[in-house]
Amino acid sequence: MTQLHPDIFVNNRPDTDGDEEEDYFDYFYDEPGSEPGTLIIEPDAKPSRIILIDYDEDNAIRKVDITPNACAPYIGTNTVSWMDIQGLGSETVLKQVGEIFNLHPLLLEDVVNVPQRPKLEDYNNQLLVISQMVRLKEDESGFDTEQVSFVLGKRYLLSFQEEELQDCFEIVRDRIRTSQGRVRKSGADYLTYLLLDTIIDGYFPVVEHYEDRIEALEDMIISNPDRDTMQEIYDVRRELLALRRLIWPMRNVLHLLMRDHHGIVSDEVQIYFRDSYDHVIQILEIIEAYRELAASLMDVYMSTMGNKLNEIMKFLTVISTIFIPLTFIVGVYGMNFENMPELKGEWSYFIVWLIMLAVAGGLIFYFWRKGWFKPIYSLKEEAKS
Amino acid sequence: MTQLHPDIFVNNRPDTDGDEEEDYFDYFYDEPGSEPGTLIIEPDAKPSRIILIDYDEDNAIRKVDITPNACAPYIGTNTVSWMDIQGLGSETVLKQVGEIFNLHPLLLEDVVNVPQRPKLEDYNNQLLVISQMVRLKEDESGFDTEQVSFVLGKRYLLSFQEEELQDCFEIVRDRIRTSQGRVRKSGADYLTYLLLDTIIDGYFPVVEHYEDRIEALEDMIISNPDRDTMQEIYDVRRELLALRRLIWPMRNVLHLLMRDHHGIVSDEVQIYFRDSYDHVIQILEIIEAYRELAASLMDVYMSTMGNKLNEIMKFLTVISTIFIPLTFIVGVYGMNFENMPELKGEWSYFIVWLIMLAVAGGLIFYFWRKGWFKPIYSLKEEAKS
Amino acid sequence: MTQLHPDIFVNNRPDTDGDEEEDYFDYFYDEPGSEPGTLIIEPDAKPSRIILIDYDEDNAIRKVDITPNACAPYIGTNTVSWMDIQGLGSETVLKQVGEIFNLHPLLLEDVVNVPQRPKLEDYNNQLLVISQMVRLKEDESGFDTEQVSFVLGKRYLLSFQEEELQDCFEIVRDRIRTSQGRVRKSGADYLTYLLLDTIIDGYFPVVEHYEDRIEALEDMIISNPDRDTMQEIYDVRRELLALRRLIWPMRNVLHLLMRDHHGIVSDEVQIYFRDSYDHVIQILEIIEAYRELAASLMDVYMSTMGNKLNEIMKFLTVISTIFIPLTFIVGVYGMNFENMPELKGEWSYFIVWLIMLAVAGGLIFYFWRKGWFKPIYSLKEEAKS
Amino acid sequence: MTQLHPDIFVNNRPDTDGDEEEDYFDYFYDEPGSEPGTLIIEPDAKPSRIILIDYDEDNAIRKVDITPNACAPYIGTNTVSWMDIQGLGSETVLKQVGEIFNLHPLLLEDVVNVPQRPKLEDYNNQLLVISQMVRLKEDESGFDTEQVSFVLGKRYLLSFQEEELQDCFEIVRDRIRTSQGRVRKSGADYLTYLLLDTIIDGYFPVVEHYEDRIEALEDMIISNPDRDTMQEIYDVRRELLALRRLIWPMRNVLHLLMRDHHGIVSDEVQIYFRDSYDHVIQILEIIEAYRELAASLMDVYMSTMGNKLNEIMKFLTVISTIFIPLTFIVGVYGMNFENMPELKGEWSYFIVWLIMLAVAGGLIFYFWRKGWFKPIYSLKEEAKS
Amino acid sequence: MTQLHPDIFVNNRPDTDGDEEEDYFDYFYDEPGSEPGTLIIEPDAKPSRIILIDYDEDNAIRKVDITPNACAPYIGTNTVSWMDIQGLGSETVLKQVGEIFNLHPLLLEDVVNVPQRPKLEDYNNQLLVISQMVRLKEDESGFDTEQVSFVLGKRYLLSFQEEELQDCFEIVRDRIRTSQGRVRKSGADYLTYLLLDTIIDGYFPVVEHYEDRIEALEDMIISNPDRDTMQEIYDVRRELLALRRLIWPMRNVLHLLMRDHHGIVSDEVQIYFRDSYDHVIQILEIIEAYRELAASLMDVYMSTMGNKLNEIMKFLTVISTIFIPLTFIVGVYGMNFENMPELKGEWSYFIVWLIMLAVAGGLIFYFWRKGWFKPIYSLKEEAKS
Repeated sequence: MTQLHPDIFVNNRPDTDGDEEEDYFDYFYDEPGSEPGTLIIEPDAKPSRIILIDYDEDNAIRKVDITPNACAPYIGTNTVSWMDIQGLGSETVLKQVGEIFNLHPLLLEDVVNVPQRPKLEDYNNQLLVISQMVRLKEDESGFDTEQVSFVLGKRYLLSFQEEELQDCFEIVRDRIRTSQGRVRKSGADYLTYLLLDTIIDGYFPVVEHYEDRIEALEDMIISNPDRDTMQEIYDVRRELLALRRLIWPMRNVLHLLMRDHHGIVSDEVQIYFRDSYDHVIQILEIIEAYRELAASLMDVYMSTMGNKLNEIMKFLTVISTIFIPLTFIVGVYGMNFENMPELKGEWSYFIVWLIMLAVAGGLIFYFWRKGWFKPIYSLKEEAKS
Repeated sequence: MTQLHPDIFVNNRPDTDGDEEEDYFDYFYDEPGSEPGTLIIEPDAKPSRIILIDYDEDNAIRKVDITPNACAPYIGTNTVSWMDIQGLGSETVLKQVGEIFNLHPLLLEDVVNVPQRPKLEDYNNQLLVISQMVRLKEDESGFDTEQVSFVLGKRYLLSFQEEELQDCFEIVRDRIRTSQGRVRKSGADYLTYLLLDTIIDGYFPVVEHYEDRIEALEDMIISNPDRDTMQEIYDVRRELLALRRLIWPMRNVLHLLMRDHHGIVSDEVQIYFRDSYDHVIQILEIIEAYRELAASLMDVYMSTMGNKLNEIMKFLTVISTIFIPLTFIVGVYGMNFENMPELKGEWSYFIVWLIMLAVAGGLIFYFWRKGWFKPIYSLKEEAKS
Repeated sequence: MTQLHPDIFVNNRPDTDGDEEEDYFDYFYDEPGSEPGTLIIEPDAKPSRIILIDYDEDNAIRKVDITPNACAPYIGTNTVSWMDIQGLGSETVLKQVGEIFNLHPLLLEDVVNVPQRPKLEDYNNQLLVISQMVRLKEDESGFDTEQVSFVLGKRYLLSFQEEELQDCFEIVRDRIRTSQGRVRKSGADYLTYLLLDTIIDGYFPVVEHYEDRIEALEDMIISNPDRDTMQEIYDVRRELLALRRLIWPMRNVLHLLMRDHHGIVSDEVQIYFRDSYDHVIQILEIIEAYRELAASLMDVYMSTMGNKLNEIMKFLTVISTIFIPLTFIVGVYGMNFENMPELKGEWSYFIVWLIMLAVAGGLIFYFWRKGWFKPIYSLKEEAKS
Repeated sequence: MTQLHPDIFVNNRPDTDGDEEEDYFDYFYDEPGSEPGTLIIEPDAKPSRIILIDYDEDNAIRKVDITPNACAPYIGTNTVSWMDIQGLGSETVLKQVGEIFNLHPLLLEDVVNVPQRPKLEDYNNQLLVISQMVRLKEDESGFDTEQVSFVLGKRYLLSFQEEELQDCFEIVRDRIRTSQGRVRKSGADYLTYLLLDTIIDGYFPVVEHYEDRIEALEDMIISNPDRDTMQEIYDVRRELLALRRLIWPMRNVLHLLMRDHHGIVSDEVQIYFRDSYDHVIQILEIIEAYRELAASLMDVYMSTMGNKLNEIMKFLTVISTIFIPLTFIVGVYGMNFENMPELKGEWSYFIVWLIMLAVAGGLIFYFWRKGWFKPIYSLKEEAKS
Repeated sequence: MTQLHPDIFVNNRPDTDGDEEEDYFDYFYDEPGSEPGTLIIEPDAKPSRIILIDYDEDNAIRKVDITPNACAPYIGTNTVSWMDIQGLGSETVLKQVGEIFNLHPLLLEDVVNVPQRPKLEDYNNQLLVISQMVRLKEDESGFDTEQVSFVLGKRYLLSFQEEELQDCFEIVRDRIRTSQGRVRKSGADYLTYLLLDTIIDGYFPVVEHYEDRIEALEDMIISNPDRDTMQEIYDVRRELLALRRLIWPMRNVLHLLMRDHHGIVSDEVQIYFRDSYDHVIQILEIIEAYRELAASLMDVYMSTMGNKLNEIMKFLTVISTIFIPLTFIVGVYGMNFENMPELKGEWSYFIVWLIMLAVAGGLIFYFWRKGWFKPIYSLKEEAKS
């Protein structure tokens, strides 16, 4: 299950293979007994690439693919420095960043060893914010997650992304470049808000996707439930559970950002975090509502199946009940007794036919009175549509 | 899924088409990455229209279809000014209002981007109250919602409604005009209470509507459950879930209004908000009770279906058990063996009939003793009624 | 749904007709938009009648059918004055009471507009206590409720009952008259305790009634479950839910009476309220336990039905499996082939009978080995008992 | 339901008759309207008997069947006095005790009117502790309860038991006599701890008993579920619910004893109560786990029954499907048409047999491929074992 | 149930025999009435063995199989002393340890009487930490637990393990020996963190094991559910419940270690405990998610079984419905009436065949239209795979 490497510090998470879409419930964990605070680079992590943006109200500089040491001069000035590290695979780069910003070993470990639970931690004059970004898969069969971590200091912000692809922060960079909105006039705290807000807003399309799937399920259960329906309900429940687990801790993160005065987040920006907090609560409420609906759908599905069984049984019962007496009657006159007066009558055969028609007609009338034909009919109708 | 407009600030909520009644679980959300605090006018929003009422104990002025700038002179005087904005579609009007009252951009965004979760937010000397009004649909198949937002200042109140139709505030306006009750003697806080109380009282007829539907379901399940019954239970559960989601946050809103001393709500009016708080608790308790009843009804429905299956199977078993042995007997005497002594007896045929009648009678007696006929009978009775 | 009367202040609760026993989940509500704090007399409310008892340790005066104004001289003296208003139908009487005791309009509204949720509210020097009395119906098919409200002042107590019938306070009046116990030595707070304790003790027989019904259900499900059983479980659940809703808020009422020092309830009497609080907790615990048992009973019922189905199917299968092969065999020798050697043998017919008996015996032995006959037998036994 | 006696103070709890074992959910309650704080001796209560033990580090005196007044001289000295009252049936004795120790009427009422909910109440310089002792029934079909109450003062302890039989405190008395452990060196608080600890440790064998029953149920459901299984699951759930209700309030009692400084419990002994608190938490956790397991077992039982039904139906379907076509074939050649060429062939009969064997074999092969025979076989195996 | 030994202090936990793997829900408990704080050595406890490691930044001494008295000189020096006691079977050794470190009798009892609930207790200048280590069984059929207790003082740490085998602390000893990481530079608090972190990290592989089992169950339910599937779901639920019970109290332990300032845990090390706290929360969240998934799987299983039943019934109905009318037809022409004109026609027999083929074909077409053949087919396909 766990591979033991020559060195003590092993990463016992298997390379995510084809089943990657199933691992909604993993967290990173160390090999038991490993040294805490050690940097473990995952073998399949992307190489790190840094984009530095340094700005104040008047100027904005953007440097791409810069080394950490080249960033150092920008730190500690009066401008706001945003260092975006994309890819967590270059140990040297990450260690240099750790040294320049004097990051606590546990902080760096949380940033690199993905996935972690979203959280806010206060390391004296630095705030660590771990968040999980979600994105619908291209085939819409679920969602991907990517950990985005922030280290927020007085005049600087570090952000760490797992990959450089699908970079949803470009829009924020554009806004800085074009000095759109109030971003250039505000500090690193407002920038953090902008990026977190982008991440949180990314949950809404995913949540809406589940609304669509639940509506599709409602239709499917009414019109034509099959064995895949249950599987789909189960998948929706499992994915909503996973989604909830990602956004739930964000509530606490934003609550801390919005209330506690660390000296790092200004009063003015706290109002903005209050807005993000509202969004997280909204997402959570919708997820909870969908989870409850999905659970109710299971009941509806079970009852639909029970209804179908009842109708199948009614059908069988109608057929059996009509023909079993008739078969008995014809059996009677198939007996070979020598003395069976009915057999000799000229009209006997036709009288028996009349009796049988009467019996069948009576039974059909009986079932019609009981209302058994209506559902059978509707079943048939359904099959046509 | 989301339409990308030429400008960055897009509204990715599709125009609500025919399925409008299903969207009980939506919240407004921005396109990820959009600038916070930006005013996004929904394409199908109604044009804005302002009704200004300015009153004190002695005088009351009412101006309809006034421009925001024309309202400005009434603000900041000793009279109470109530500006009711109906329709959220005129950007100019809304921006002017924002400037006159110095509204925070996030506040204005929450007012315009409907629907939002009900909440109370304190912007220094202004209280923002978001509430959701509910109204039964005309065909009684569910309910409509409309966001009503209030901005409460020291001597003024702004209210924002989505549409001018179905204006349930007219009654309050009449009361101001005729100086009925204590409204003219009180401040903007009491006016807010009156309007919120009107909105909350509007939940009771909706809740009562669900009581009727649950009672109808109880009757239906007992007398004549069909496949639509389950669907109806599911619908009731879903709508109660949606209703609960609308009123639940109001509890917190009123708790804040009733307890916290913002200097804006006087002690005297807090007693009134305590009364509204009680009503919200009552509504919530009834909704919870109905939700629990609806869940129990599902169990009752399942068991009713199981009962029906049992009775169908009993019916089939009775018919089969009676005729299968008889058919065997007649089969025996249909055999063509040359030496079958019974065949030759003169009374054999009639003796066989007697035997068969005895077998059938015995089996019928056996089933009667087991009590299988009673439920079958009641099923028949049911079909008649 | 709501009738609009010529005047604004309407009571939109329909006259409680024959279905009165179903309305376990109602609360009074105003027509949306009506003036708060207005006295709305229900059309079917009983005329008000006042019993005044004024006592101290040495003397006790009792006046029946007195007018409010005639009571005024007794208020504000050093004696304890208990004014018991029975029936809420006389507007004049109620308004006079309101004036004499200077009651807040909202307080009077809560007292008159029944039913309200139990609560304690502090109006400066008056405590309003709303409670709900329960009483088993005479046919034991559920329970009736009646709102009893108290207004407790320094030396006086107002109590409001919906009807004068079924007055369970007579016992307390006797105790005052005969100076039994410590009531004459204590203040209005102890009197309030006595009355509330009487109301709370009235829940125990109702709760015990549900214990009896649950035990009857347990027996019914084991011995002879039918379609009414499920209905009865549902009714018990619904009524326990309603009962819980009535007593649950009393917990909070008594907690406030027992802890908070309003200056109105003395330390000594707080110990007594602690005792009532214990009783409320006990009632709640039993209700919760019964609710859980009733939910479990539903599972037991479902499984009992499943068992029955299995046994019906076993019965059908046994009968079919025994006779279907036999019917095949007799069918074989009913064929009309010219060359069927068995037909000619003298003993063929009897050999076939032996074969058929062997087949039937073997199958019966097989089912006996499988243990299928035991449950069938017990089913039969059951039918006899 | 309630019997009205000539005097007001009635005990409306019926004498516990044969069904005593069912009353897991009762609490004592007064006749509504009775005087609070009155001593009501239950008719079937055992006569009271007192054992006094008075000890300090050097001496220990033990007096059996002593009168309360004879105990008085021992109280108020520097020694620890433990008065153990066994049986709650002697009003004179209990009243004398109440006078000697100056017990509050409500305190004495709670002690005498069993059963009460476990609780701790602080009457100035006396702590009342109500606890419920449990004991497995001799036939292991459930458990009995007995209320044990303690009144803890500065240098004395009163304990009240319902019966003198099954006195589990003898072991503590021995320890005092032989000066074992630290009991003789400590005060009445440590003695209270010892006795409460004995009572709490008595829950463990009862809890273990339910572990055994749940394990037996697991086995029963897998191997041979029958209709009693469900009943047994229900009984276990009901009894665990009752057990939980008894121990749950003890958590709070011990929390208060362990935290609050009443001056009566020394710091040193609080550490011991912390240990008892841990035990109560452990008992509660196990009960909760068992309750959850019992609920899961219900699901397993339902699915086992569903499995059985599927296998019965498979069996019926296999038998029917094999013989129905064969019966049709033999029916064909039982027809009496004059021109049926097959009838005349010499080998026709044997060819038909071959065809029928082929059809039967094909169907059997088909079912074998579908895997329907395996479960049927295992069903048979099961029946054998 | 409980064996009474000649001495009062008995251990009433039976020797764990073959069923050891089932006892997930036990706690140690004393014989009711036994002296608290007494050391009870379990008969099957392993003999105790001590490993002493004494280190500071410069030196590290390791002594194996040392006696407690030989350890005494190392205590109270400026170095950190870690005394690891493996095996809890030697009373003398444990008593000596208790004397040297002046351990409270209750503390020692909790350490020796395994298993106990995880907890942190503060004995003045010593912290007792009880934790439960888990380890997958070798056959992967569940997990084993072992209690590890820590007593943390100012400069020393005592650890107690149940067995010396499977010692997962060797890795930490190596780290001390080789002076790896910061352990040699830190105090006994950091050492405690390292050991606890090792224990907590040991939960991850166990939790991952359940992820594998749940995924296997998902596959099994879709492809080929049988009666063992339900048993397996139940086992997974039971084991997750047990696992949750072990880790849940650790949350509180770490919360106390991370927040409270006992003077024993330095501020710096509290940050490390915060990290462990995060891990515990992660483990708990995953366990909760798996428990919910396992519960959903039960629903899926039930519905899969219901689907199977429906398909079996459809199959039976199709076969019966096709052949029952045909059998009736052939029965008709097996009758022996003298006047049956059809019998004489030369082509009658063939016409009857045509009619029967038409009937069968019509019925098959009817079922095909209803879509009944598809699922039957897929059932067959499934059987093949």
